[in-house]
Parts: sequence; structure tokens; C-alpha cells
Amino acid sequence: MNSTRIYYNKKLKPKEPILIVGLPGIGSVGSLVAEYLKNEINAKRFATLYSPHFIHQTIMLKSGYTRLISNRFYVKSSKKGSIMILLGDTQAPSPEGQYEVNEEIVRFFKSLGGKTIYTIGGYSAGSHYIHNPRVFGVATDSKTKSTLSKNGIVFGQTSGAIWGSAGMIVSFAKMYGLSAACIMGETSALEIDANAARAVLESLKKILGININLENIDKIKTETDRMIKELEDAQKAAEPPRKENFTYIR
Amino acid sequence: MNSTRIYYNKKLKPKEPILIVGLPGIGSVGSLVAEYLKNEINAKRFATLYSPHFIHQTIMLKSGYTRLISNRFYVKSSKKGSIMILLGDTQAPSPEGQYEVNEEIVRFFKSLGGKTIYTIGGYSAGSHYIHNPRVFGVATDSKTKSTLSKNGIVFGQTSGAIWGSAGMIVSFAKMYGLSAACIMGETSALEIDANAARAVLESLKKILGININLENIDKIKTETDRMIKELEDAQKAAEPPRKENFTYIR
Amino acid sequence: MNSTRIYYNKKLKPKEPILIVGLPGIGSVGSLVAEYLKNEINAKRFATLYSPHFIHQTIMLKSGYTRLISNRFYVKSSKKGSIMILLGDTQAPSPEGQYEVNEEIVRFFKSLGGKTIYTIGGYSAGSHYIHNPRVFGVATDSKTKSTLSKNGIVFGQTSGAIWGSAGMIVSFAKMYGLSAACIMGETSALEIDANAARAVLESLKKILGININLENIDKIKTETDRMIKELEDAQKAAEPPRKENFTYIR
Amino acid sequence: MNSTRIYYNKKLKPKEPILIVGLPGIGSVGSLVAEYLKNEINAKRFATLYSPHFIHQTIMLKSGYTRLISNRFYVKSSKKGSIMILLGDTQAPSPEGQYEVNEEIVRFFKSLGGKTIYTIGGYSAGSHYIHNPRVFGVATDSKTKSTLSKNGIVFGQTSGAIWGSAGMIVSFAKMYGLSAACIMGETSALEIDANAARAVLESLKKILGININLENIDKIKTETDRMIKELEDAQKAAEPPRKENFTYIR
Repeated sequence: MNSTRIYYNKKLKPKEPILIVGLPGIGSVGSLVAEYLKNEINAKRFATLYSPHFIHQTIMLKSGYTRLISNRFYVKSSKKGSIMILLGDTQAPSPEGQYEVNEEIVRFFKSLGGKTIYTIGGYSAGSHYIHNPRVFGVATDSKTKSTLSKNGIVFGQTSGAIWGSAGMIVSFAKMYGLSAACIMGETSALEIDANAARAVLESLKKILGININLENIDKIKTETDRMIKELEDAQKAAEPPRKENFTYIR
Repeated sequence: MNSTRIYYNKKLKPKEPILIVGLPGIGSVGSLVAEYLKNEINAKRFATLYSPHFIHQTIMLKSGYTRLISNRFYVKSSKKGSIMILLGDTQAPSPEGQYEVNEEIVRFFKSLGGKTIYTIGGYSAGSHYIHNPRVFGVATDSKTKSTLSKNGIVFGQTSGAIWGSAGMIVSFAKMYGLSAACIMGETSALEIDANAARAVLESLKKILGININLENIDKIKTETDRMIKELEDAQKAAEPPRKENFTYIR
Repeated sequence: MNSTRIYYNKKLKPKEPILIVGLPGIGSVGSLVAEYLKNEINAKRFATLYSPHFIHQTIMLKSGYTRLISNRFYVKSSKKGSIMILLGDTQAPSPEGQYEVNEEIVRFFKSLGGKTIYTIGGYSAGSHYIHNPRVFGVATDSKTKSTLSKNGIVFGQTSGAIWGSAGMIVSFAKMYGLSAACIMGETSALEIDANAARAVLESLKKILGININLENIDKIKTETDRMIKELEDAQKAAEPPRKENFTYIR
Repeated sequence: MNSTRIYYNKKLKPKEPILIVGLPGIGSVGSLVAEYLKNEINAKRFATLYSPHFIHQTIMLKSGYTRLISNRFYVKSSKKGSIMILLGDTQAPSPEGQYEVNEEIVRFFKSLGGKTIYTIGGYSAGSHYIHNPRVFGVATDSKTKSTLSKNGIVFGQTSGAIWGSAGMIVSFAKMYGLSAACIMGETSALEIDANAARAVLESLKKILGININLENIDKIKTETDRMIKELEDAQKAAEPPRKENFTYIR
């Protein structure tokens, strides 16, 4: 395999699809949001993306089967249109891989008639736990900015650079004439920040005009809160907590 | 050389070949099994795979000649069919190399009429020496799983990911419509774990329905056991044993 | 995206353009010179270069928009001819990326009718601050050397190698039959050395025969001088200054 | 530049050329031999090899000009035939680069009618200085082995692997139906081991049937011996010598 490939169900006829992208990254916000949304709206897999730029791993499933590391597309169609979700095990570690995979994602989505993409990520706001995370955004155009602003997304308050898919898919979308935004939950020193994911899901409910039951994410949030409490207690203790507890996923 | 190449004897007419893959990896289980099997059934080399993704080394032979780092295919045909064995000096260190080489192996084997592949590896079970190693499996399909289960291979007890060829060849086999499984000997902190290899060979005897004399592997096993005894004694001593003794090969 | 791409305004009709290249590097001399010159002569962007060999980052702008990491071409045409400027966020980190991007820059410039290129860099002269930086040069041919020598550029006093674009663009220019030189401001242990940049700008004024108001760079220089004073004071103090203060940008 | 390129004088009509390859490596033996031989037989440059897999450096010459990192071919023709020499600034750091460059060298030499290649390297014999270095060999075929053995080259005494061009060019030569050998001077902890180079040059005199004045290498050897004496004295002193003095070039 020398280049990125997408295997997909060619019979699919999506209606003005909107794509939500949630891949591994800071605070696992993207992954949490995409996985949760997929389960809540009961979206079905219709495409799988493999890339020679992903790590060379095969995942062992409890069923005794395996699957190659991948990114996966899901879809749920209703009268209002189709919601597509992209989630997955990994992002390519190299620049060359990122440029190839992210352009391929945008090209594929455009070929399905898609016009709008929202990528989900975490925005790192220092090392303190964020109790009331804001949701930040950057966008390709003023119309998208305006739509998201009305739904509480904060623009112009972020600086620096976005690593990987969450930013690059927005950039490629613009090159391909699509509208896109990166929606970022404010997060801090947590591997899995359900609180930030919850804040993003609240925003997505309004933006997509759909109902999402946030009870389950509340359970994850409760668990995360408990974990944070422990960390905070540890920080007060004599010995400093182990560094690994504060590692970011990228 | 810009891509992986296989030089082979085009006159070869294999009969419903089964491929056993044993490349360098955890506990050297794959290498040990493939090398041993090749010698015991007296299989002959018929193909050599070179790749620009392998390290840039040439091996100096005692004869005063050299050979480029490679993977090599062997075959032994009988009335029951052809057994092919793939072994070699190395695996590609990069993702891109792994994707190219492993797909090429599957494509080549399919072009020879092959339908079934068993890759051999080690499954790391912690840092304690395993006296009675189990043999674990993951497979592409229920029929292969069922065949292997009947021969004592344990399914559903492994988790995590397989690095490199042992897993990826199974994944590519599935993409190409072949049946495959990864058969893993339970192993631990050993560079060369003949005990795990022996357990896999016992399973292969049954699966392939062939006779393999395990006397020689017993000699390797005896030697390995002696080495382990020494390590265990060292661990009891005041000074900790040297780290290098516990390095895994990948 | 699998190779470097330049998007540009195809209606542009430059007149015997001269290209000034100032990309990130030692002392940020190239970046400072290119950015300053662009603003002073009021050059306008006409082309953008993207490469899959650049890091996989998207920059968040204060406006709430984003842009993909890039190199950018600007132009200012007058009766005397067109001055083009290339500046940007990054250089490719890998050899393969550098060879691709730098040849592409030369090919593109030649396709616009260009014949002369000056790349700007810093020449590291040890760890002491340089109060009166010299401007060094290396060139493709004797005529270019002679032109620059007359304007105070010092030849034959540098040794070693130039990393990245500042040197490679000169090499590729020669292969493509163009004239080129690398003009280097003498610099030392500073991330942003406005003093070295000022010296190069003084030279460029003469070489290009244009007027450049150096008042603003003087402000940057004043600020830089203040920073250096602080560093020097720190060095005299008991505790050694932090290593990071002395990091070179490449 | 996306692949390795050789620019050469197409009018050249070599006579049954023999190629001597001496690129940077252990003890700089290959570089020393190739550079010395080139000067002694007064060979002239006829080809230059550039590669996007070489490091991205441009060398500043004392003349005020520059040249891109390269490998260079020289030739000297006489009634007895043509001797070609390949030397250069670097070897490609990546596997992919090594496979591409080394195959290209062999393909190019074959296209010029060449049939025999000798690569020169150092064979590391531990950390003690070798006073009377042996010259080891590995070859593609028995005829080459026999020719070299008659001239004092020792076969069958080396083991392990050769990194880079010295080994890979021999391997590719075999694939392309040419005869080749790697000739290695026994060396130890020295960056530049003129003593090992001298031993190889003594062998080459006999193999090529030419006269080489070894007086100049004797000067280098004298200098090297002096340097070694200093190192040995340092080792006897209380403080251990700095590690960098013992670094190998590869």
C-alpha cells in the first residue's frame, strides 16, 4: 500500500451531508465527541480509510478477529439531511502523511456532495483544570463564523497553531471551496476530558439542530471529575504527582 | 531501488500452498519457528524479497561472499500440497515500509494460488518466564478460528495491538480475500524464547498435519532454560542483572 | 497533497524580476529582512507555496480565520523592474522536502522570466554579540561576486556549510542557468538579530538601487540591543543564564 | 528534485572501466584512498551525482563560490584501460536514500561499459590502534575472490554487516551481473586512519597493476601516528580522554 485508500459503500446517496471530524488529539475531545455522537444518533459505518502513513499496527479484538489501524466514516440520514462522522484510531505521525490523509478526507467528502465540515479538538488552556470550559472556533469564512458565533462559539480568542487533522481539514476544505470550522473545547492537563467534550456537544446540539441525550457523557464526566479530584489531592501532598498523569494525547 | 521487489523462480508450480510467516519479533518466536520448520521439512528457497525500506546493510558471509538484507521464501511440495515458509533478516522500520512490504507479500502469495496464511509471533505476557506457554490466535474468519481452536489455539484472550508483519499480513490477507491467522506463543523477557517456539511448533504439527521432529528445538530449549536459570540466579543476587539481558527484539 | 504546489496569479506580468528570499534561519536575519523590505516597498502577495514536507500545522489568526503553514511571494513593480520577495512560516525539516521545495522555487521564478536571486541568511560568528556586523556573500559566478563586492559584501571569508534554502536556492539557480548569491549578516547568540538584518538591508539598498527607510528596523534594533544588554548582565551574575536564551532558529 | 540525478560528460568513451568507490565511512578509509588515488593518477572529473536523500547543505568554497553536497566521478584512461573513482561529501542517511543512490551508481557505471567495482571501507577491529593493519575482502564471485586473494586480501575473517555504500554497491553489482568486492582496511578508534588507507593503497597498486607514489600518504600517516601517540598518552593520564576523540564517522 503506497497511498491512502478509502473503501466505501458506493450505493450510499447522502443528502447535503455535514461532516463532523473527531480524531485523537488534545484531551481526546475530538474522539469523545465523535464516538458519543455516533452512538447517540445511531450512525452506521459506510467507509473506512487506511493509510501507509499510519503506524503499522493491527488491533486484536475480543472476538478473536483483528482490524488494521484505520479512520472510519459513519452516516445518519433524516429528512433534514445527512450527518456524517469521522473517527478513528490514529492520526499520521509525519507531515507527509498528514497532508495526504487530510486532503483525501476533504476530496472524498466533496465527492459525496458535502459542503460543510466541523472538526472537533481541544484547546489547551494551561495546566489548571477548567470547570466551565468555553468552546472556541476558527473558520474558513464569515458566514460560518457568524452561524457558529450565534450558537455560543467564541472566535478571536485563540492563538498559535493547530496540529494535525483538526486544523488541516479546515485548510483543505477552503482550498476545495467548502465551508469549515474547527470547534475546540477548552481543556487542560487531562488525557480524557469529558467536561470539554460535553461543552462541545452542547454547542453541536444547537448547530446541527438535533437532540443529543447528554446523560451518558455525564457519567464519563463524573468519572473524569473524580479522577481530577484525586490528581488535585495528589498535588497537595508532599511528593509531586507522576508526570505521566499529565501527558497530552496528540 | 524505489520499491519492494521479489525475485522468484517462475517455473514453480505450487499446489494449494499454505504460507507460514516467521520474521524477527518478540522473543524471536517467529524466526525460530520458521527457521526450524524450513530445516525439518527440507524446504527449498524459491524467492527473495528486497526492499528500499529495509535497513541499508549487506551481510558478510563466512564464505567471503555477501548478501543484501532480505526476506526469503522457501517451499516444500508433497501430495498433500505445498508448504511455503517466509523468513528473513529484518522487518521494515517505518510505517510506509511495513505497508508496502506486507501487502506485497500477500499479493505475491495470492498470485501463486495461495489461500491460507499463518503468521507466527510472540505474545508478551509480562516479565516472568513462562514455563508452560499457551498458544494464542487471532484470525480473519470464523472457519479459520474454528480450525485453529480445535488444535488448541486460544482465541479471545489477547488484547492490544500487534506490531508489524505478524498482524499486517493477516489484515492484508483479509483485504485480498484470503484466510489467515496470527499464531502467538506466550513469551516473556527473553531475546530468544525456544520454549514459546516449541509450543507453536507443536500446534503447527497438528494444523498442517505433518510430522516435525522436535528434538533439535529441545536442544535449543535446554540451552535457553540454562540461560534463564542463570538470569533467575542473577536476579536473586545483590546487584540487579544488566538491562540488556531483558531487551525484546522487535 | 503529495508534492509542493504554488498557487499564483497568472495574470501577473513582471519585468525582469529580481527575487529576494528571506526564510526562517539563523538569527532570523532572512525573515526580518524579507518582512521589513516587503512592508517598506509595499509589495503585494501574488503567490503561495504549500508543501507536504512542511510541518502539519494550521495557524490561528486573530480574525478568527486560519491559514495553512506556507511560503509566500510578494511583488512590487516599477519602471526599473520588479522586485519579488519570498518569505514564510517555515522551511521543510527533511532533506527530501528541502530538495523539492527549493528546486520548485527556482523553477517557478525562472518561469516568470527571473534571472537573479539573492537569498538572505545569518552567518554565525561565535557566541559574542556582534556590534558592527559584516555582510558576507557566496555566489554562483564572478559577475555577481563582483557586483556585490562593489557594494561592500565580503567574499572568501566564510567556510563550512549553509543549511537549507539560503544555500540550496543558490545551488539550484546555478543548475537552472540563473545568477544568484547568498548574502549573510554576521550574527551570534540571538534568536532575532535586528542588527544583522539592518546591515543586510543597508547592502540591499545599494544593490537594488532603491530607497529603504531604516527607521523602523532601528526601533527593532533598539529593542534587540536592550534584550542583549539584559543577557549580558545576566551572564555577569552568579547563576548562568538559561540555555534557551541562546537557541538558534534554523 | 525528487530522485537521484547524475550529470555527466556524454562524450566520454571509457575503455573497460574499473570503478573504485571511496565514500565517507569508518576511519575515513574509503575517502582517504579515493582522494589520494585521484590526485596521484591525476584523474579528471566527468560526472556529478546529486540526491534529494543527501543532507540539505551547500558548501561554501574559499573562492567565494558554493557547491551542493554531491558525490563525484573521476576518470583516468591509459592503454591498459580506464580507472574511475567515485568520492564525495556524504552518504544518504536513510535506507530509502541508500537503496536509490547505490543502485543508481551501479546502473550508471554499467551503462558506461563497466564490469568491475571495488568499494573501499574500514573494518573496525576494536578500540586498540592497529599498527600493522590487514586488508579484508568480501566479493560477489569466486574469480574476484581468487584475484584479490593472490594480492594479499584476506577473505573469510570478517563477520557482521557492512553499513551503506561499501556493501550495497557490491550487492547491486551482483544483481546487475557485474563483478565486485569490498576491500576493507583494518582500523580502530580513529576518525581519519591513514595507516589503514595506506594498507589498502598498497593492495590496490597490485590489483590495478599501476604505480602509486605513497610518499604523501606517508606524511598523512606520520601526522596520524603523532595524533594517536597523544591519544595514548592521554589514556595513561588520570582523567579519561574525551569521548568525542573516539567517534567513528559513518
